[in-house]
Amino acid sequence: MIPYGTLVVYVTPRGRRYVKRLVAGQDWHSNEGILYAADVAQADFGAVVHTHQGVPVQVLEATLHDRLKGLKRQTQIIYPKDIAYICLRLGAGPGRTVVEAGCGSGGLTTALSWFCGPTGHVVSHEVREEFLHLARHNLEWAGVGGNVELHHRDIAEGFCVTNADALFLDVRTPWEYLEQGLAAVRPGAMFGFLLPTVDQVGKLLLGLERGPFAAIEVCEILLRRWKPVADRLRPEDRMTAHTGFLIFCRQQEHSAAFDAHQPKGTRERKQDAARMARLAQENGPVQDCNAEGEEA
Amino acid sequence: MIPYGTLVVYVTPRGRRYVKRLVAGQDWHSNEGILYAADVAQADFGAVVHTHQGVPVQVLEATLHDRLKGLKRQTQIIYPKDIAYICLRLGAGPGRTVVEAGCGSGGLTTALSWFCGPTGHVVSHEVREEFLHLARHNLEWAGVGGNVELHHRDIAEGFCVTNADALFLDVRTPWEYLEQGLAAVRPGAMFGFLLPTVDQVGKLLLGLERGPFAAIEVCEILLRRWKPVADRLRPEDRMTAHTGFLIFCRQQEHSAAFDAHQPKGTRERKQDAARMARLAQENGPVQDCNAEGEEA
Amino acid sequence: MIPYGTLVVYVTPRGRRYVKRLVAGQDWHSNEGILYAADVAQADFGAVVHTHQGVPVQVLEATLHDRLKGLKRQTQIIYPKDIAYICLRLGAGPGRTVVEAGCGSGGLTTALSWFCGPTGHVVSHEVREEFLHLARHNLEWAGVGGNVELHHRDIAEGFCVTNADALFLDVRTPWEYLEQGLAAVRPGAMFGFLLPTVDQVGKLLLGLERGPFAAIEVCEILLRRWKPVADRLRPEDRMTAHTGFLIFCRQQEHSAAFDAHQPKGTRERKQDAARMARLAQENGPVQDCNAEGEEA
Amino acid sequence: MIPYGTLVVYVTPRGRRYVKRLVAGQDWHSNEGILYAADVAQADFGAVVHTHQGVPVQVLEATLHDRLKGLKRQTQIIYPKDIAYICLRLGAGPGRTVVEAGCGSGGLTTALSWFCGPTGHVVSHEVREEFLHLARHNLEWAGVGGNVELHHRDIAEGFCVTNADALFLDVRTPWEYLEQGLAAVRPGAMFGFLLPTVDQVGKLLLGLERGPFAAIEVCEILLRRWKPVADRLRPEDRMTAHTGFLIFCRQQEHSAAFDAHQPKGTRERKQDAARMARLAQENGPVQDCNAEGEEA
Repeated sequence: MIPYGTLVVYVTPRGRRYVKRLVAGQDWHSNEGILYAADVAQADFGAVVHTHQGVPVQVLEATLHDRLKGLKRQTQIIYPKDIAYICLRLGAGPGRTVVEAGCGSGGLTTALSWFCGPTGHVVSHEVREEFLHLARHNLEWAGVGGNVELHHRDIAEGFCVTNADALFLDVRTPWEYLEQGLAAVRPGAMFGFLLPTVDQVGKLLLGLERGPFAAIEVCEILLRRWKPVADRLRPEDRMTAHTGFLIFCRQQEHSAAFDAHQPKGTRERKQDAARMARLAQENGPVQDCNAEGEEA
Repeated sequence: MIPYGTLVVYVTPRGRRYVKRLVAGQDWHSNEGILYAADVAQADFGAVVHTHQGVPVQVLEATLHDRLKGLKRQTQIIYPKDIAYICLRLGAGPGRTVVEAGCGSGGLTTALSWFCGPTGHVVSHEVREEFLHLARHNLEWAGVGGNVELHHRDIAEGFCVTNADALFLDVRTPWEYLEQGLAAVRPGAMFGFLLPTVDQVGKLLLGLERGPFAAIEVCEILLRRWKPVADRLRPEDRMTAHTGFLIFCRQQEHSAAFDAHQPKGTRERKQDAARMARLAQENGPVQDCNAEGEEA
Repeated sequence: MIPYGTLVVYVTPRGRRYVKRLVAGQDWHSNEGILYAADVAQADFGAVVHTHQGVPVQVLEATLHDRLKGLKRQTQIIYPKDIAYICLRLGAGPGRTVVEAGCGSGGLTTALSWFCGPTGHVVSHEVREEFLHLARHNLEWAGVGGNVELHHRDIAEGFCVTNADALFLDVRTPWEYLEQGLAAVRPGAMFGFLLPTVDQVGKLLLGLERGPFAAIEVCEILLRRWKPVADRLRPEDRMTAHTGFLIFCRQQEHSAAFDAHQPKGTRERKQDAARMARLAQENGPVQDCNAEGEEA
Repeated sequence: MIPYGTLVVYVTPRGRRYVKRLVAGQDWHSNEGILYAADVAQADFGAVVHTHQGVPVQVLEATLHDRLKGLKRQTQIIYPKDIAYICLRLGAGPGRTVVEAGCGSGGLTTALSWFCGPTGHVVSHEVREEFLHLARHNLEWAGVGGNVELHHRDIAEGFCVTNADALFLDVRTPWEYLEQGLAAVRPGAMFGFLLPTVDQVGKLLLGLERGPFAAIEVCEILLRRWKPVADRLRPEDRMTAHTGFLIFCRQQEHSAAFDAHQPKGTRERKQDAARMARLAQENGPVQDCNAEGEEA
């Protein structure tokens, strides 16, 4: 039994795939004939249901990837390759609270909602109303969003949350919102950013150097597809060469917190802060105490 | 208050980071002095605690990424960049059941356990006992694994689960276990594979072409780090150039299920199956019915 | 003075560029008016000449790159990024003799002809007559080829040259022509190959392992373009992800030449040959005796 | 007969390769015994000569690639992958004159010298005397340089040549020397630049936008090696991820040359220049009039 409201994928005998919502009374009129919603609802995932013309159609559950790819977009959407790595680096998962701005078309929001689940929390901010509507539409369409707060808000005025576990900014000038971001998360929280140009990356790095941030990383992720043909195996001719630079860092005290307990002169303190920032950068994100492997 | 048993990261004023478990009575003897476990336990994440020499140390929660990088490894571990994409493509998440073999050092197992959470389920199989012990050790060390079954088992004899949502094989000859895999999952389940050489990819593709699989994709993911220095921004000199090829596909009926309802001659059926497989490949993984964007 | 017969580039005030041959009496009828051949012939490279409508047009010499990009193609042409590396690895240059098959559309032939110059020699073979005609047309069009021999020939019957400095094969099954190739070059010659699929690369490697070859290298070259805009600097969205695998090796005696002077039993000799091939592979192409730098 | 003074590669039965100069009376003392220079001089390239212990050694000519890799370096050397593409884009070849600064260790100089040959000309400038000495040493070592002028000179004071065909700058602040560069080349000449950081690329682009330059391209070239083993074919684990950004452009009149013949107001002229620069950028480097293929 597939509940009404579920997002399903219909696979025709010719291998075509259609992502559709199963709605009571809304039959699917395809080139292969009419597929009755009532018939689909009585089947199980993976089953074959027939159109009124007798054409067999397999009914699959829409995967997370199907949902991400099916989102309506008016903005540049974050690619699944980037979304996946962002979710891992931010530690999205059951019980976690992740903040983001802007939500854009809601691509990352969808994945965060999926991974955080009913016990987690996603707090999303978007200043442009049309994107907010689009993101809401997309979350509903994707069958997620029960754990998502969508705020119509300029984050210059602050985020609508405190003590979050992680924060992601997909905005043009993220360096302008670092203070607001710090106020939204708990100490030690992970920060993530997506930026298309190196000029922006440079400006963000300058901003991060001034703040209580460490373990700063900049990377780009490339996904190269291969033609899946056994005896002519080779990469695809063309690929997406750039989506954006990913920047990750962690809220980390430099000198302020230390000063309370270890009074020093202003000059020493500044040197300390600079030294710590520099060392943190040189040392990379973490000294691995349990294993000896090379960094991934 | 940080509970005993928690995995924490100690950050020294020089920016060094140490991933440690907080255990009652087990103080951390560092170059900066002794950090008393009792002091740490009374602090909150992000707080600064002092060693007996007065050196301030910030106490952070270990992120998922910290945990993955800290795993002890005797096998080649799957890299976070690959783990992230695998988890997204398999749709790991709360309430989901994911099967895998072999578990190796438990890197993917750790991430699957994290994303699936208490309401999800990870069923892992490993034929070599020493890896099983290592994976168990690593899951415990990483503070996850409550939702993981670890089976000491040769998957040639079948998996210890049925009706799973997705399956991942990180074994040398995955094409030998496709039937067992199909028996372990529900119809329409996602399959994932990691293979280091193109020869293996070719053999797997031949195996998948014979079975009820569609939407076959082969890709590789490259992570390129940049030096996070604002005014000298440039990629790192060296990078990891290869970890493995990722192969994804989905259980999908070709002809068998169709035959029951749409009797045809053997020859026609074979042609159908071949045509469907070919079309599925040409058409790519999904026809996007809600949006017009280019595939990620 | 620009001689008639020269390949020139006309640049219009709107920045459009047209690669044209300057032929006596053949004026260029453009959207910007008629540019008289006689006017161009009296100018120097870089000068501005006016159309009959008074529109200024700058006249540039066609670069090697302009010529490569302007070739007519009926086959997949080798890309400049690959051509450049092939020419360097084969040591094309004044006074050198390079053999190739097939010539296809003549892309590599054009560059080899350019680099080897009047004192060098390019001996090209092509089994399909229509490609031979195309290559000849393209060489003439590009204003090179004076040092090129084009042979209409199946290389299964041998190459039309001996003692060449280097050989390049851009054919479907290069492993079938290794003996013929060896007969065409001098001892120690460089060999190069371009192959689109990994299956072919594997077969070629098997062939090379049987023959007197060493310093075998397989690589791929990726060219990633960036948008040349100062304040929005970023990679292009898409790129060519695959053109072909390049394989290089060098004729090098394994055991045969050694046997004459150092008689051994058959078994020992085979072991020697295998060991040498293996060591050569492990040791890489060259032990650098003059410098300490890392390999490029 | 191999002339004394030649750079040769000795290949031992164990597959080790040593690049050495053959000098009269200077025998090679290897682990395999003494190889007498007189014996080598009487052999031909590719022949096997024996050490005094009877160990056979094959004698090969050093390839251009061997020479580039064998250069002594005190500076970051340009990689062969970049050198190859630079030489092609600048149109190095017999009869051509190419200018460069700084020469650094002489890597690019060596290749330019090789490709331009006795009828060509390489004019190299270097402000630091120790690099000049090193480059001279390396050119001699590599057996090239007969067509090279090495100038100890600060290019701020201008280049020692006019009317060159192409110019390459491998200096920290190339945007400061564009005027001097323009004075050194003929109209329409190709310019090339190598820069390690994106910040420098941005500054150079700003400089180029102000000058008579068009067809501006920025790219990076990646070379990914594969393990040359037939049945375990796979990319190498690690690769060089960054050497530098390559920038190419061409001297091209914007408005100055046009003004003489087509008088306009200052404002119109500025608009023209800006429009041309913009269009040139949008239109890419060349409109291909002979062929229809996609750009490489």
